[in-house]
Amino acid sequence: MTPAPVPGRVVVIGTGLIGTSAALALRRYGAGVWLWDRDPAAAALAADLGAGRVLARPEDCPGPADVALIAVPPVEVAGVLATLQRAGLAHCYTDVASVKALPLARAREAGCDISRYVPGHPLAGRERSGPAAARADLFLGRAWALCPAPETSGAAVATVTAMVTACGAEPVLTDADSHDRWVALVSHAPHVVAAAMAAQLAPKSVPPEALSLAGPGLRDATRIAVGDAGLWTQILTGNAGPVAAVLAAVAGDIAEAARILETGPDGSPAPEAEASKELTGLLEQGRAGVARIPGKHGGPARAFTAVQVVISDRPGELARLFAAAADVGVNVEDVGIEHSPGAPVGVAELSVRPESAETLINALTAGGWPVRR
Amino acid sequence: MTPAPVPGRVVVIGTGLIGTSAALALRRYGAGVWLWDRDPAAAALAADLGAGRVLARPEDCPGPADVALIAVPPVEVAGVLATLQRAGLAHCYTDVASVKALPLARAREAGCDISRYVPGHPLAGRERSGPAAARADLFLGRAWALCPAPETSGAAVATVTAMVTACGAEPVLTDADSHDRWVALVSHAPHVVAAAMAAQLAPKSVPPEALSLAGPGLRDATRIAVGDAGLWTQILTGNAGPVAAVLAAVAGDIAEAARILETGPDGSPAPEAEASKELTGLLEQGRAGVARIPGKHGGPARAFTAVQVVISDRPGELARLFAAAADVGVNVEDVGIEHSPGAPVGVAELSVRPESAETLINALTAGGWPVRR
Repeated sequence: MTPAPVPGRVVVIGTGLIGTSAALALRRYGAGVWLWDRDPAAAALAADLGAGRVLARPEDCPGPADVALIAVPPVEVAGVLATLQRAGLAHCYTDVASVKALPLARAREAGCDISRYVPGHPLAGRERSGPAAARADLFLGRAWALCPAPETSGAAVATVTAMVTACGAEPVLTDADSHDRWVALVSHAPHVVAAAMAAQLAPKSVPPEALSLAGPGLRDATRIAVGDAGLWTQILTGNAGPVAAVLAAVAGDIAEAARILETGPDGSPAPEAEASKELTGLLEQGRAGVARIPGKHGGPARAFTAVQVVISDRPGELARLFAAAADVGVNVEDVGIEHSPGAPVGVAELSVRPESAETLINALTAGGWPVRR
Repeated sequence: MTPAPVPGRVVVIGTGLIGTSAALALRRYGAGVWLWDRDPAAAALAADLGAGRVLARPEDCPGPADVALIAVPPVEVAGVLATLQRAGLAHCYTDVASVKALPLARAREAGCDISRYVPGHPLAGRERSGPAAARADLFLGRAWALCPAPETSGAAVATVTAMVTACGAEPVLTDADSHDRWVALVSHAPHVVAAAMAAQLAPKSVPPEALSLAGPGLRDATRIAVGDAGLWTQILTGNAGPVAAVLAAVAGDIAEAARILETGPDGSPAPEAEASKELTGLLEQGRAGVARIPGKHGGPARAFTAVQVVISDRPGELARLFAAAADVGVNVEDVGIEHSPGAPVGVAELSVRPESAETLINALTAGGWPVRR
């Protein structure tokens, strides 16, 4: 099948982080983009960022668009879809809600034309929300699930797939129920689990000294729990069954670990060896799970080679380092810097393609940089 | 009280990641460091890295050291301490085990001289272990708990505090029981919770497509679960009571969330509004907990200003960017790069001191870089 062309005309309903980011990405392809939000200030800000032209009302869109992108909260999708379809706003429709069975069921109840509706979900986000946080590259390399119903037309799927690809995302084609089970596992349940762990840190009975012992691991492990509690409640209740199943299993494993550590099965203290074996099994299972999570850009982890260089903490040091890499034609794919304020030196970790590592190491060593691989 | 001088002679027993890193840090102060490990290859590698001189046997150390740093697994601490004290190896002793009540109790049972023993725990680590992963700056800005017993002498505490400070760490003075409750909360229980969540991703019944929907949030939330399962089992069983208490509370909250989502208290489907309220409460509590976790270097989060610059993906681009910053005397404290393979552009996020941001933005803008703050 020849891929469909990138849609030339898109109307975005809801100019929050996701809607505005998609609009910005599509504008890069020269698409005509129209914007509407129930908050006129949000739509105006999106337009100021170059995301498209503001509509006073959705139905003011001049002629049917190729795609209407509905970027509103999950429970509002079906109502908005019904309204837009009555106005004949577009040839096909998609949404970005993070649950899919619920909007699809409600759209059916509301009598929507499902043949033109491709339920969608971009797996992208930021800790900040709203149009000001939008970025054209938000979807680069990220998965974007598309969950056509049996009655959805192939033409609608092809058009929305082309739009998703133009945003830089990787389309993942599935059905609404599978999608919801999968996101329960990789997104919704982890959010609740992180929140439940972090909630233990909140009481005043936990002194600041206790938290001073926290390392970066705790920060990483609980970061997802900072998301907006109201929006997340809507997401969780919208995917209640699949999320509940995962949470019950996780709670069971954690409770079992607690029981092992507290006492043996008959109430007596657990023999250390037995406790060890059961606990180690859970931890090993956890390691196996982590190993299955794909790498940075949503695909399998890319194998870059890390080259560590000791650098001094003064202006120009990094410039000289990158200039030395550029001189031998090596592209630095990523860089991390570790140093503490006041420390005279730090370590820059340069990620480069494996075939470039030797060239870089030789060049830096020749230039007098303290390098370790 | 005048701070004690940095110990001039330290013997490190166990040249893994922690022992070797401490040795490297102390060598920077010109301290004489002796190294011993039951694995002679590990000690030899540490010596090759410049960590000190290898001892064939601990008792070969020429005269008592100021401090013996015992960097062995938790269950071995007391035995090693007893042996070293019988040999009169040092004026005072400390360890680095991540639980503290257990080694202290065992040291008492073994008849050790507790007046010379300062139980310690540096809150630092890496995903990699062993002397090859050691770095002199491992402890920079990190907390290092010291938990003297009532009978520990003030002189021993002062000496070990000076050593910890020389390693660049922040000493946190407390007692063994408080320490163990605190690390159960900020380190040990989070490890089990992350492992239990990640364990759900391991079964073959979870298809790779499900994992393709995983975002960076899941990776961050489960990263701590990659630690060595055997070592972690030892840590958890060594701090069983406090860890069990936290895990039981977390399991209870997660199970309750599962029940809310599955059915109401009487078995009927939960009313959406009620479910929302209880769930939102747990999520809000989680946000409050996350907000209490200190920032990057173990203290309150440092307020750098982020300057975002769009860069092209070719050699030399970062060099030119850093050169432009250096030209106006601005030091880049940290840098992150976001781009996808094949994408023609990416975004470099430069963290600079707030007072430097304006200078940098002006200079980059004048140089033609697309900058956003």
